[in-house]
Amino acid sequence: MKGFVISEIEIGQKASITQEITEGNILIFAGATGDLNPVHINEDFAEKTKFKTRIAHGMLSVSLIAAVLGRKLPGEGSVYVSQDVKFKAPVFIGDIITAEVKVIAKDIERNRITLNTTCMNQSGQIVIEGQAVSMPIKQ
Amino acid sequence: MKGFVISEIEIGQKASITQEITEGNILIFAGATGDLNPVHINEDFAEKTKFKTRIAHGMLSVSLIAAVLGRKLPGEGSVYVSQDVKFKAPVFIGDIITAEVKVIAKDIERNRITLNTTCMNQSGQIVIEGQAVSMPIKQ
Amino acid sequence: MKGFVISEIEIGQKASITQEITEGNILIFAGATGDLNPVHINEDFAEKTKFKTRIAHGMLSVSLIAAVLGRKLPGEGSVYVSQDVKFKAPVFIGDIITAEVKVIAKDIERNRITLNTTCMNQSGQIVIEGQAVSMPIKQ
Amino acid sequence: MKGFVISEIEIGQKASITQEITEGNILIFAGATGDLNPVHINEDFAEKTKFKTRIAHGMLSVSLIAAVLGRKLPGEGSVYVSQDVKFKAPVFIGDIITAEVKVIAKDIERNRITLNTTCMNQSGQIVIEGQAVSMPIKQ
Repeated sequence: MKGFVISEIEIGQKASITQEITEGNILIFAGATGDLNPVHINEDFAEKTKFKTRIAHGMLSVSLIAAVLGRKLPGEGSVYVSQDVKFKAPVFIGDIITAEVKVIAKDIERNRITLNTTCMNQSGQIVIEGQAVSMPIKQ
Repeated sequence: MKGFVISEIEIGQKASITQEITEGNILIFAGATGDLNPVHINEDFAEKTKFKTRIAHGMLSVSLIAAVLGRKLPGEGSVYVSQDVKFKAPVFIGDIITAEVKVIAKDIERNRITLNTTCMNQSGQIVIEGQAVSMPIKQ
Repeated sequence: MKGFVISEIEIGQKASITQEITEGNILIFAGATGDLNPVHINEDFAEKTKFKTRIAHGMLSVSLIAAVLGRKLPGEGSVYVSQDVKFKAPVFIGDIITAEVKVIAKDIERNRITLNTTCMNQSGQIVIEGQAVSMPIKQ
Repeated sequence: MKGFVISEIEIGQKASITQEITEGNILIFAGATGDLNPVHINEDFAEKTKFKTRIAHGMLSVSLIAAVLGRKLPGEGSVYVSQDVKFKAPVFIGDIITAEVKVIAKDIERNRITLNTTCMNQSGQIVIEGQAVSMPIKQ
């Protein structure tokens, strides 16, 4: 159940989760965070925007990256140091998003790993890209 | 109701929201994002970690920054381009978090503004800091 | 999209929805309603109860009945008049619950229908039974 | 922390909780239960209904009754046997709902208590009334 310690982590190691973004997810995320922007929750409003329909909150997809880091790599007990993201394309209701993290650097002395972090939709389009730094659990 | 257009936005302009992070918020966020890491939802587990109690998901606080950008500055109709964050201190149940954004640069040609983005707790401690780029709604 | 009017509804007519009760659903329901009873959200506590593990909120399953009434039979625009339920067996994380409603009486003059309402788990065990009264949308 | 045992419970004993019904609560409840009926979440649709605006899910208010039973009277460890409710008036965004339970009968042999259960809005109007049966925790 415990996460990896830094000596168990290899450059190039990957982990991912895949989740459908449902209308329900978006409503719950809106309510939990207070981000009730009508582009996310009001179809009539959203039809008049450039995307022509409701889009998911960007941070909902970023939260999937956070879930991979916290649950899989480095996993339980790890501490989130930083995250940067670029939003490359919108996420719509019904999209199947795969959040993937891949280790690109290890700093054993400071117990930190750097990971490329991406979210891709069911068509293989990158919707979010960026990097995270995380501290794995200590031995 | 509409957000600001770039000509209405000044360097130095600020906006913020303040919200209590409740146990309920954390449970809902965990369920909505699938991040069921026990450091967030299981007090018995969390007591054995270095924070000695449950901590909120970092992205829950980041989502408050997203809410300020989407609802206040630049506001409705704006498009989120990028966000980077450093997690400086943990957020606990009952903390009152103020997410503040402050305009530090305008690129009128590309219709983009850059903002410093911070989350501060009720003691005035910075828990998250970073920068965002956003495209205000067009005239 | 509109619900049935009473003249379109037959005695014996049925509708149902089937949904898995996930840990996420339970956490979200707990946060949304404020019912943070540890029998629902704390496995260590729940292991010492007679059910030996966490159980779902009874009202989470009842809400599936409400969803069938509001979305399918009588459907959109109907008004919920009353509901009574008996909780017959616990619902656990991972159970697949089918909420079914069946029309047993029509009162055309008062525009009301009475329905038997049940929730059944994946083993065919009735976990909730009761009756509802609903007013279909008017012609 | 433990709930009352039946010998500690008096006829006439009351408990209540008061909670604002926010737009966020309704969105979260919709997402968690799958009840995305537009009368609850789409203001444009709801304006054309007889209530002229969005209304909360009835079961959201009933869940407040469940929360009082599970947290206060009889409290933790109690088992919910049955609930019947009549929906008397709609609940709107911003309403402050008080869910109150009052013991009206005790059956010591079967370890069951019967309670009147009501939800009242900030104007003192009863929006839900009914009865519940609950089994307190055993000595």
